[in-house]
Amino acid sequence: MESKSNFKAEEEEPEAIVWAQKAWALLSSVRAKSPLIQCITNFVSMDLMANTLLSAGASPAMLHSIEELPDFTPQVHALCVNVGTLSADWLPAMKVAAELAHNSGKPWVLDPVAAGASGFRLKACLELVELKPTVIRGNASEIIALANASVGPTKGADSSHESTDAIESAKSLAQSSGALVAVSGAVDIVTDGKRVVGARNGVAMLTRITATGCSVTALIAAFVAVDQSHVLEATACALSIFGIASEVGMKLANGPASLRMHLIDSLYRLDEVCVLSHVKIGSLS
Amino acid sequence: MESKSNFKAEEEEPEAIVWAQKAWALLSSVRAKSPLIQCITNFVSMDLMANTLLSAGASPAMLHSIEELPDFTPQVHALCVNVGTLSADWLPAMKVAAELAHNSGKPWVLDPVAAGASGFRLKACLELVELKPTVIRGNASEIIALANASVGPTKGADSSHESTDAIESAKSLAQSSGALVAVSGAVDIVTDGKRVVGARNGVAMLTRITATGCSVTALIAAFVAVDQSHVLEATACALSIFGIASEVGMKLANGPASLRMHLIDSLYRLDEVCVLSHVKIGSLS
Amino acid sequence: MESKSNFKAEEEEPEAIVWAQKAWALLSSVRAKSPLIQCITNFVSMDLMANTLLSAGASPAMLHSIEELPDFTPQVHALCVNVGTLSADWLPAMKVAAELAHNSGKPWVLDPVAAGASGFRLKACLELVELKPTVIRGNASEIIALANASVGPTKGADSSHESTDAIESAKSLAQSSGALVAVSGAVDIVTDGKRVVGARNGVAMLTRITATGCSVTALIAAFVAVDQSHVLEATACALSIFGIASEVGMKLANGPASLRMHLIDSLYRLDEVCVLSHVKIGSLS
Repeated sequence: MESKSNFKAEEEEPEAIVWAQKAWALLSSVRAKSPLIQCITNFVSMDLMANTLLSAGASPAMLHSIEELPDFTPQVHALCVNVGTLSADWLPAMKVAAELAHNSGKPWVLDPVAAGASGFRLKACLELVELKPTVIRGNASEIIALANASVGPTKGADSSHESTDAIESAKSLAQSSGALVAVSGAVDIVTDGKRVVGARNGVAMLTRITATGCSVTALIAAFVAVDQSHVLEATACALSIFGIASEVGMKLANGPASLRMHLIDSLYRLDEVCVLSHVKIGSLS
Repeated sequence: MESKSNFKAEEEEPEAIVWAQKAWALLSSVRAKSPLIQCITNFVSMDLMANTLLSAGASPAMLHSIEELPDFTPQVHALCVNVGTLSADWLPAMKVAAELAHNSGKPWVLDPVAAGASGFRLKACLELVELKPTVIRGNASEIIALANASVGPTKGADSSHESTDAIESAKSLAQSSGALVAVSGAVDIVTDGKRVVGARNGVAMLTRITATGCSVTALIAAFVAVDQSHVLEATACALSIFGIASEVGMKLANGPASLRMHLIDSLYRLDEVCVLSHVKIGSLS
Repeated sequence: MESKSNFKAEEEEPEAIVWAQKAWALLSSVRAKSPLIQCITNFVSMDLMANTLLSAGASPAMLHSIEELPDFTPQVHALCVNVGTLSADWLPAMKVAAELAHNSGKPWVLDPVAAGASGFRLKACLELVELKPTVIRGNASEIIALANASVGPTKGADSSHESTDAIESAKSLAQSSGALVAVSGAVDIVTDGKRVVGARNGVAMLTRITATGCSVTALIAAFVAVDQSHVLEATACALSIFGIASEVGMKLANGPASLRMHLIDSLYRLDEVCVLSHVKIGSLS
C-alpha cells in the first residue's frame, strides 16, 4: 500500500555497524526481559524451539488448548504459530490464539510450514494470514506458495527454491497481508513490502537439522516481543543472531547433531564482541 | 491432619550418610528392577523424559490412549501424569489412568505444569489431585496455585517464586490431598504434610533446559515404583540423584544443550562413590 | 507361498563383500536422491526420526492429517507408519496413508511398537498389516505378538525376547502378510519368509536411547525408496548402516545421550572405507 521510499543506506560501513549494535541490544533485551512466548507449534519442533527460547533468555510456553487461550494468550508477550503437523483439531486454537494476540496488541508470528503441500494446508495458512500476523517466516517455497495461493510440487518442509528467488513473492505477500515477511535461506530476506534487508549469517548444515527453521521463527517472536515498534529490525536481528550461533557452533561440530548442541550452547553464550564482529545484515533494496 | 512430631535429625552427620546410602540403594534398585513407567505427558518432554528413565535403568512407556489403559496400566510399576500440553481430549485418559493405577495399588505421580495458567488447567489439576496421586511434583508457583486453588499471573511453565516460599503451601496441599508434595527449586522441598526434607543438589542452568522438571517427575515415579513403602525417601532421593547428575554434567558443559547431554550420560554412569559424596539431603523441620 | 530356494551363499567372503558394497551403494543413493519420506509416527520419536533421515540425506515430512493425505502421500517416495503413541483419532489417517501409498505403488513401512501391549493396539496393528506394508520392522516381542495375534505380558516398547527367538514368527508373518519382516536385536533379522539374513552391526547401548528403533524403521523406508525392487537387501543394509553409525559413535560416547549425538553425526559422515570395513550382513538360512 505505502510505497514511496526505499531506505537504502548510502554508506555500507555505518549501516553494518548500526545493525550489529541493534542485534546486540535486542539480544540483551531478550535476556533482560525474558519475554513469555506462547508457541502453538508442531510436535517435531517443540523440544528444540523451547530450548532455543530458553537459551536466548526467553520463557517459552507450549500451550495449545482452546479452552485455555482466553485466560492465557492475553498475558504473553508474543505468540508463535507453526503449522508443521497441522490437523483439523488444532487449527481452531491457532486461529483463536492469533485473534486474541492481535486484539491484545501482542505481536504474533506465523510459520507456514510446507504451505503448498496440500490444499487443506494452503487454505489454513491463508486463513491465518488473514488474521494479521506481525511476521510471516518461511522458506522460499513456502512464501511463494502463500504469495501465489497455490499448491505445488513439494519437498515437504524443505525448500525447492533459493531465498533470493522469493524476493518478489515476499514483497507482494508483505504488501497484501500487512505482515513483515522473512524468507530463510543462504541469505535470509526480510521485507515489509518496501524495504528489503538481507541477513547473511548461518551455515548450510542447518538444513540437515530438523526444526531449526521453526526455532528461528520463535526467536523472531521473542525479539519482536521486546521491540514491537521495530518489527523489521527485530526480525532481521533474530535471524542474524541465530545464524551467528550456528557459525560459532559449527567450529566445534562434527555433524548435524553436534551442531544442534553447539548452536544452543552458543546462543546462550554469545557476547558483545562476538555479535558485533559477526552480524552481516544489510539493505538489498 | 497428623501433626504430633517433627523427625528432625539431631546429629546432621549420620542423617546425611543415611540419606546418601538410601539414594544409592534406590538408584541401584531402579537399575536392577527396570520398572515399567507409563508416562502420559506433554509433547515437549516426551523425548527427554523417556531418555531420563532409560538412562536411569527404568523402562518408559509413552502410552496415552484411553482404549488401551484397562489392558496396560494395571501392568505398569508406576504412572506419571503431566499436564504440560493439556487438552480436553487428553484429560479423560489422564483421569482413567490415574484411577486404574490407584485401584491396582500402583503409585502414580502428578506434574501440574503451569497449574495456575488458566481456569481450565487449574480445574483439571484439582480434579487429578482428587484421584489420589502418590506424589505431586511442581515448582513453587504451581504448588502455590494448587494449594490456593487459584489462577494467577503466570510465567507459563517457569516459576515466579522460590521453592522455599512454597513450604507452607506444600504442607497444606500434602495434608489436604494425602499426597507427598515435592517443590523443585534451588532447594528441592519434599513434604508429607508433617516432615519437611530438603534436597540441595542441582545446578541453576537446569532452568534453561526444557522438560528437566518433567523428567525428574518421571524419575520420582521410577524411584517410588521400587520402594512404594517409603514415598518421601524415594522422592527426595530421586530429586537428589537427578541433581547430582546435573552437577557432574555441569563440569563438562558449555551451555544448556551440552548440559542436557552430559546430565543424561552422568545419570547413566553415576557410581556409588560419586553418589555417596554428592547427596545433600536433610531435614528442614 | 513360494518356497523353492534358499539363497544361502556358499562362500562367506564374497557374500560379505557383496553386502558391504550394496550397503554403500544404497547409502550413496539416498544421499544423491534425497527421497521424501512421510512419517506418521509417535510423538516421542519425531525429533530423532527426522534428524536420522536428514543426516542420512533423505527429506522427512512429518505430516499426519487425514485431510492432507490425498494431496500429499502420492507425492512421497516412501511412507513410514509407527504406532508408538497410537490413539483412535490417529489410526484412520494411518490406514488412509497406507492405502494411498500402496495404491500409488510407493513402499510403506510399518513399525508395530508395543504391538502386544493392549487389545486395541494389537487389533490396530493387525489391521495395518492387512494393508500390505512393504516392510514390518519390530523387536522380537512385537513380531511374536503380531505373528501370534496375541496380547502378552509387556515391557512397553522394550522387548522381552531375543531377536533370534523370533525367527520362526518373522518367517510366518512374512509369509502370511507378504511383507518383508525385520526383527531388531543383538542380531537384526530380515526375512521374506524364505531367505533369512542377519545384520550384526550396532551396540547394546542403543536400547538405552528412546526412538532408535523407530528411527531405523524410517531409515529402512528411505533405503527401500531408492531401491524398491530389492526390499530385503535395502532393509538389511539400512539396519547395518544405522548399526555402523552407532559403532562409530560409540567410540566417542560417554553414555546414551552422547551416543545419540555421535550416532547422528556418524551417519552424516560415514564414508566408503568405513562402510566397507564395518558391514556385517550374512545369510542365516
